Amino acid sequence: MASPQPRSRNAPGAGAILQLIRTGEAVTRADIMERTGLSRSTVAQRLEQLVSRRLIVAAGSSASTGGRPPASFAFNPDAGVVLAAGMGATHSRLALTDLDGRVVVEESSDVDITQEPDAVLAWIEERFLALVRAGRRAPDDLLAIGVGVPAPVEHATGTPVSPPIMPGWDGYPIAERLRAAFAVPVLVDNDVNTMAWGEHAINWRDTPHMVYIKVGTGIGLGIVADGRVQRGSDGAAGDIGHLAIPAAEGIRCVCGNTGCLEAVASGRAMAQQLREQGLEARHSRDVVDLARSGELIAMNLVRESGRLIGEALVSAVNLLNPRVIVVGGDMAHADQLLLAGIREAVYQRSLPLATRHLRIVRSVLDDSAGVIGAAMLAIEHVLAPDVVDERLAEEEAARAASRAAS
Amino acid sequence: MASPQPRSRNAPGAGAILQLIRTGEAVTRADIMERTGLSRSTVAQRLEQLVSRRLIVAAGSSASTGGRPPASFAFNPDAGVVLAAGMGATHSRLALTDLDGRVVVEESSDVDITQEPDAVLAWIEERFLALVRAGRRAPDDLLAIGVGVPAPVEHATGTPVSPPIMPGWDGYPIAERLRAAFAVPVLVDNDVNTMAWGEHAINWRDTPHMVYIKVGTGIGLGIVADGRVQRGSDGAAGDIGHLAIPAAEGIRCVCGNTGCLEAVASGRAMAQQLREQGLEARHSRDVVDLARSGELIAMNLVRESGRLIGEALVSAVNLLNPRVIVVGGDMAHADQLLLAGIREAVYQRSLPLATRHLRIVRSVLDDSAGVIGAAMLAIEHVLAPDVVDERLAEEEAARAASRAAS
Repeated sequence: MASPQPRSRNAPGAGAILQLIRTGEAVTRADIMERTGLSRSTVAQRLEQLVSRRLIVAAGSSASTGGRPPASFAFNPDAGVVLAAGMGATHSRLALTDLDGRVVVEESSDVDITQEPDAVLAWIEERFLALVRAGRRAPDDLLAIGVGVPAPVEHATGTPVSPPIMPGWDGYPIAERLRAAFAVPVLVDNDVNTMAWGEHAINWRDTPHMVYIKVGTGIGLGIVADGRVQRGSDGAAGDIGHLAIPAAEGIRCVCGNTGCLEAVASGRAMAQQLREQGLEARHSRDVVDLARSGELIAMNLVRESGRLIGEALVSAVNLLNPRVIVVGGDMAHADQLLLAGIREAVYQRSLPLATRHLRIVRSVLDDSAGVIGAAMLAIEHVLAPDVVDERLAEEEAARAASRAAS
Repeated sequence: MASPQPRSRNAPGAGAILQLIRTGEAVTRADIMERTGLSRSTVAQRLEQLVSRRLIVAAGSSASTGGRPPASFAFNPDAGVVLAAGMGATHSRLALTDLDGRVVVEESSDVDITQEPDAVLAWIEERFLALVRAGRRAPDDLLAIGVGVPAPVEHATGTPVSPPIMPGWDGYPIAERLRAAFAVPVLVDNDVNTMAWGEHAINWRDTPHMVYIKVGTGIGLGIVADGRVQRGSDGAAGDIGHLAIPAAEGIRCVCGNTGCLEAVASGRAMAQQLREQGLEARHSRDVVDLARSGELIAMNLVRESGRLIGEALVSAVNLLNPRVIVVGGDMAHADQLLLAGIREAVYQRSLPLATRHLRIVRSVLDDSAGVIGAAMLAIEHVLAPDVVDERLAEEEAARAASRAAS
């Protein structure tokens, strides 16, 4: 028997109309009819579904060519919430956000990701429940969960694949576990991908080609091309940190190879170089503090590391021709020192055509890029037309069953 | 007044049904109804439209759960033809193909692309007309044109942008001119992009992440990610030839920079190195001939150039994590010598996760990749659901007007 709402149906349902309203492509009945080819009565019925589910609200009347002013509609970001976790190697940030990705409540903690996944996920579950309570939301308001982890991730299943810094998590079904606990869709992605997606969704939505480079303890790249996060064939795309650069020749990297960018220009490598020169620096943040306080050795090192990062970024510029490079991660707090070095190398070495419109800017979302990006990943999923239609159909079926039972 | 068939309508029209049939996703009435959510009568009406336009043919009955066996349908690649041109720096290949990209008639010629665009395009127009005649097709059968040129191309307008080897073509409206001459849609793209798309469409359709490297006079990369050609923000994506590699340090490149891969590992560079050693080699093909004839200096050079190309390809592997690297261009005729060098460097240097499923293979389409890819670009455009719906509506309107006039 054919299902009444097949997942892959092409007819524009309420979800497609929600999409038109949310993106601002069509917000009046007349525009929606024209864009969907649906009749007035069908559009009215689907708008009614969306209004009753509070996904849209009437937004008054818009100017029209005459006759009765058609009502226009607006997306309602308070129709639900999502939970998001941006997990780093040693630090995590969790948030409850509305459907625009605006934070309702958030918290950050030091968490060692090299622990057993069971312990970390039990902790995440507990904190997620606390966030829902703190946000004064009914459990029913929760629509989805997004998680970023510092590992290659098989996106379809939400499972880390051969994660170098969290080896105990190889193949661990993160998405499956959280879905069982919260009964909502769970999206899992690599941390740098979530950061790239967060910056893109909030600040660069109209720029289809961007890359985000995270310079922290390690170095990673998140690629947005044609408006989509590029994960590659095994979820391993964006690994810029282990490209070979001449300045790193012979220097051993944590990956087991030699000559990698990360071995000389990461926060970890910079801290080590400063320690070798008698300065106190354990982490990226210490390097930033020294550079910002005017310590010349640290300032020169950050600038030079920027140049080396820029050399590696030339690959990304020549291969991907992005319109913007967003620089994030702890080391981005060194700000213009790092960016000046990056710009110098990129503009010197890349092709003129690929750089004539290129901008190199600092991350606006900063430490929140990962958690916001994880939230946006969850939101984009849960507001996709097919998923909206399916949820509305399920709710309708549940109501019908409860009417029949009463 | 609302147009009767707005371009962006979401309702599944005949074009969406054609797509389902062409991809094999749904080929029976029942499956099409389920997938589109359309009624039996609407599906019947749209199938009839497609049959009368010969875009599909009844393909007999398929096994069913019982009752009347539903007719199944198949895409008809003979419903029209496209013209395609694969333009190289000195050589071009033109073809008339069916809607599966199968060649009906083709020809290849030596053409100097550095000539004035007017002269080259007048020649292309003349040869295109000759191909239509040779293929015994009515002018009405022509549905679209695809063109690949050795230049960065602004894809939306079909215009070369700052093309280094064909400077007279900067901003020349190739697509506009051919559209005026043939009154069909014209798609223009960079030559390596068309080669990548040809290989992908014909041999790697189920592999969403692939890169195609052309090693000829120059070196370029065509990127397919998420099943789409990636052109970047200015049509300049895929420029691997001007990445810096240590072995080229200080060596001047045709781009005006020094240290580029192309300055040491292209067919041009290899021929020059052989000449310096007293061997006769003007073009890539001469290098290939020498290497294949067992000339040790040439064999070593090709193998070593393969290693250098592999070093640069590590960037593409680490950043894009493709499932397959397809090696094409004249130098690919040196076959295993070149591939062995490439494999050696890629597998030695890339991340294990990114190479564990990676294949490095020679182009199957070989010299035809560009022209076939240009044809496939045109075909994908002209069979896109919106475009099909628009064309059917126009034809319907033209018939109605002619009835009214008679």
